[in-house]
Amino acid sequence: MGDGLFSKFKEYSVAEFFKKNRQMLGFSGKVRSLTTIVHEYCTNSLDACGEAGTYPEIEVWVSGEGENKYKVRTKDNGPGIPKTHIGKALGMMLAGTKFNRYMQQRGQQGIGATGCTMYALITTGKPIKVISSHEGKRIECEISMDFKNNKPLINMVSEGPAEGGKSGLEIEGIFGDVKHDKSAYGVYEYLRRTAIANPHATIIFNSPDGERFVFPKSVDEIPPKPVEVKPHPLGIGAHDLIEKARSAPYQKISSFLQEEFTRVTLNKIKELQEAVPEVDLGKKPSAMSWEDAEKLVAGFRKIKWIAPATDSVVPIGTKQITSSLSSVISPEFMQVTERAPKIYRGGIPFVVEVGLAYNGKGANGEILRFANRAPLLFDAGGCAITQTIKSVDWKRYGIKNLDEEPLSIFVHFASVHVPYTSAGKQSISDEEEVVDEIKNAVMEAARGLDRHLSGKRKAKEMVSKRTAILRYVGQLSRDLAELCGNKADSEKLKEKLLKLVEGKYSVGKIEEAEAAAEAVEPTKEGAEEKKNEDKGKQETLNGKEEAEE
Amino acid sequence: MGDGLFSKFKEYSVAEFFKKNRQMLGFSGKVRSLTTIVHEYCTNSLDACGEAGTYPEIEVWVSGEGENKYKVRTKDNGPGIPKTHIGKALGMMLAGTKFNRYMQQRGQQGIGATGCTMYALITTGKPIKVISSHEGKRIECEISMDFKNNKPLINMVSEGPAEGGKSGLEIEGIFGDVKHDKSAYGVYEYLRRTAIANPHATIIFNSPDGERFVFPKSVDEIPPKPVEVKPHPLGIGAHDLIEKARSAPYQKISSFLQEEFTRVTLNKIKELQEAVPEVDLGKKPSAMSWEDAEKLVAGFRKIKWIAPATDSVVPIGTKQITSSLSSVISPEFMQVTERAPKIYRGGIPFVVEVGLAYNGKGANGEILRFANRAPLLFDAGGCAITQTIKSVDWKRYGIKNLDEEPLSIFVHFASVHVPYTSAGKQSISDEEEVVDEIKNAVMEAARGLDRHLSGKRKAKEMVSKRTAILRYVGQLSRDLAELCGNKADSEKLKEKLLKLVEGKYSVGKIEEAEAAAEAVEPTKEGAEEKKNEDKGKQETLNGKEEAEE
Repeated sequence: MGDGLFSKFKEYSVAEFFKKNRQMLGFSGKVRSLTTIVHEYCTNSLDACGEAGTYPEIEVWVSGEGENKYKVRTKDNGPGIPKTHIGKALGMMLAGTKFNRYMQQRGQQGIGATGCTMYALITTGKPIKVISSHEGKRIECEISMDFKNNKPLINMVSEGPAEGGKSGLEIEGIFGDVKHDKSAYGVYEYLRRTAIANPHATIIFNSPDGERFVFPKSVDEIPPKPVEVKPHPLGIGAHDLIEKARSAPYQKISSFLQEEFTRVTLNKIKELQEAVPEVDLGKKPSAMSWEDAEKLVAGFRKIKWIAPATDSVVPIGTKQITSSLSSVISPEFMQVTERAPKIYRGGIPFVVEVGLAYNGKGANGEILRFANRAPLLFDAGGCAITQTIKSVDWKRYGIKNLDEEPLSIFVHFASVHVPYTSAGKQSISDEEEVVDEIKNAVMEAARGLDRHLSGKRKAKEMVSKRTAILRYVGQLSRDLAELCGNKADSEKLKEKLLKLVEGKYSVGKIEEAEAAAEAVEPTKEGAEEKKNEDKGKQETLNGKEEAEE
Repeated sequence: MGDGLFSKFKEYSVAEFFKKNRQMLGFSGKVRSLTTIVHEYCTNSLDACGEAGTYPEIEVWVSGEGENKYKVRTKDNGPGIPKTHIGKALGMMLAGTKFNRYMQQRGQQGIGATGCTMYALITTGKPIKVISSHEGKRIECEISMDFKNNKPLINMVSEGPAEGGKSGLEIEGIFGDVKHDKSAYGVYEYLRRTAIANPHATIIFNSPDGERFVFPKSVDEIPPKPVEVKPHPLGIGAHDLIEKARSAPYQKISSFLQEEFTRVTLNKIKELQEAVPEVDLGKKPSAMSWEDAEKLVAGFRKIKWIAPATDSVVPIGTKQITSSLSSVISPEFMQVTERAPKIYRGGIPFVVEVGLAYNGKGANGEILRFANRAPLLFDAGGCAITQTIKSVDWKRYGIKNLDEEPLSIFVHFASVHVPYTSAGKQSISDEEEVVDEIKNAVMEAARGLDRHLSGKRKAKEMVSKRTAILRYVGQLSRDLAELCGNKADSEKLKEKLLKLVEGKYSVGKIEEAEAAAEAVEPTKEGAEEKKNEDKGKQETLNGKEEAEE
């Protein structure tokens, strides 16, 4: 047989890998592919404006170029990209600013925009046109790719000063194997949901039919800039510890730990040395062996730590969610949660926000998922958010069948590292702590909804009783009067009966019942949970994972 | 701001990418991670034996090494790996024999085994031990990885002649963050299902509890060796056409097309030249421009082609599926389909096999998914197989609620290229033609089940009527006799009544009803479909995608 089989042995670049497996990047189906392109460019624009601390203004044009062929153009007012980095940002896979940063941002892989360049090249052969205005300089160029070597190919068109010192990025590409439509998976719906989660941004969409949709900025608050955080000792494994240690310029392990991790103080170093006497914390980090690393990781678990700071995760906020959902869905009733951040995988902070909008303009049982303020439109079946919502016993909250009730469920997951199930970044992996928190948040909101629905039912019952009784008051008073033989009294009887009815079933009392439905009183369960959450703010974490006392 | 943001711009290797996103390779959760490791090694062993044309003998050992730490060892009787390729096969991502081959095999990416090496290194720091006996030579070595550069690091332990000229591969690794259990997601269940789909293989599992499970070979037929096929003209896009053209050593486009594609004859070349006069098919392929390629692709669609040969896809076969399901589930009733292969994405052949096993040892409503004979245990929610099965209206076939009926649904998808949704290779993407075919196959099997269930119901009704009537025959005959005033006649009456009952509700008639339930008669719908399938064997494909006439 010889090396026959192995004569076919080859090596491939990551660009070739994703070219063959483009469905893993979201390019599966024509409608989804078009939405994926818009998604990648918009999330980059929003992230860039987020880092620059400005109100994002993003405009998107989609126009037909032939059968299943469209031009997509986006323009933002972000900081732009410097000449030195344009090629890599748009023409090289796994190159970017986002990969190793522990920060709440939409992109995190260095694949997205280059994936779009790849898609244009394989469906139309046309390079991506870029105009980048950065720090006073304006560069226009065309970008394509050498797939075999995962390298960008740049064709400079012009360079000069930027007009009026403005900055921003314009990208234009012509894509095949795509399709525009007005479905729930199309570009319009994607941008509408992006606007829901980013009320500080102005988003404009010019559709192939010539329509222009504007989602104006609706709040005057720029969300806090995302902050890059250091990892927590409980969240790192031996391998990553060694890698960090070996690449860091410190003379001593003790300094390395204090500088590169959060919550590590001189006192903790002392405790750690006592817990792990076999490893000299004064020695060089580069000399750390695997056994050392394993002992340190075990030592971390023997110490009590302050939980990681969670201000690195920025929720959208109840005020903004309420305002967004009101304007888009106009529900009869809404319940939005405000919960403390949690930790998953030992040291990664995250926060979950839930909004239930009942009886408004949304589709029955629709689930609106978001991660780091970016809408997740696809892969719902495999997403922890959707699975967790379906696992809730909605009957307990007055909802018989989720798909048949006028309920929209908004869920936002924000974290310094979103555990996506695949490079397509449309569904969240079912990490234990994440699933628990989503479930608790949804149930908390559902309790509020239940209260509203019970109140509604009670008020409705009161109204029917009242109506039924009033229907007979007239007849009853006449009959009673006849029985008593005194016609004049029938009017007085009627008055007295009406008074009785008012006393028991007054409009005022009905309104009280409805109002009681609106009030958000913590139930006993919620009160327990709330008590624990308040404690959680300066929660200590025992390495043995007793997070709550 | 300077290049501040971009000073964090970095490039990463694909190894670093999957290290950070290990859940994309299936390493999410301890139980799943252990099963993933066994899966990767076993599928490689089965593929290797498949190429060598031998009966696979695979033995797996899993033993405890500490808390959440296990040793996994596998041994096969395949051809082994030559020294020149061991490092790349087990220590480099995207290197392998499988990537660019259009062939039905389990692995297709060059990631799996290296992913296991990666996982061992990041959870225990220990290298993978390998003993490879290949072509008379035996090599023992240890493999670890340089993640930054995506390169293997090999430590040779010994080299010498292979004992008795045998060949095979032994791999042993120590993994952390894994857990063994006996659940539906554990190693035992994985190997049991592998045995179901590969009755020609002998599989042995030695569990951490000291138990030894043997799944012996149960058929004496080795499945046909998978054949590498050329792509079909209708299945290639302009970009891939240019890439193939530029890397191929031909002088003329006409020879290139005839050699590198299936179904391209001299006659077709003539038709093509007439359809596309602007492109000289006599010129060099390396001179092909994007416009040329687009015109050729358009030209392909104007011509009638014979459909791609589909003998490159090898089903498991009704005989073997029936035998496997019988031994494992022992159902009261079974229906297995035998359908012609189909095409997706224009030119990729695939075949779907469905087996329904009713009222046996399986769990209610369980769906047993397989792709290229490898079990798919995870990511069911996002898999086209599961989604399609759930979209069937089972009530039409006598099944009220799938999860409450004693029905096991076996589905096998075989193809030269399985469209997985992610690199974890546990769920299939919902390509249109694939979803249609799965649905048709499931409904075909369901019709057979419906017939059985109706027959059962009918037989059951007859039995109850008979029982009811017999209950009263005795009493009735005595009463009638009394009415007639003659006691002796009551015995004769009883005999006559019994004869009547037998005539109408005999055991024989009941058995007939049950037998009618077993017979597989094509329904009108199936007959239509069958007619088209028979035609499909030498189906012509019109470039305008009128696949059936």
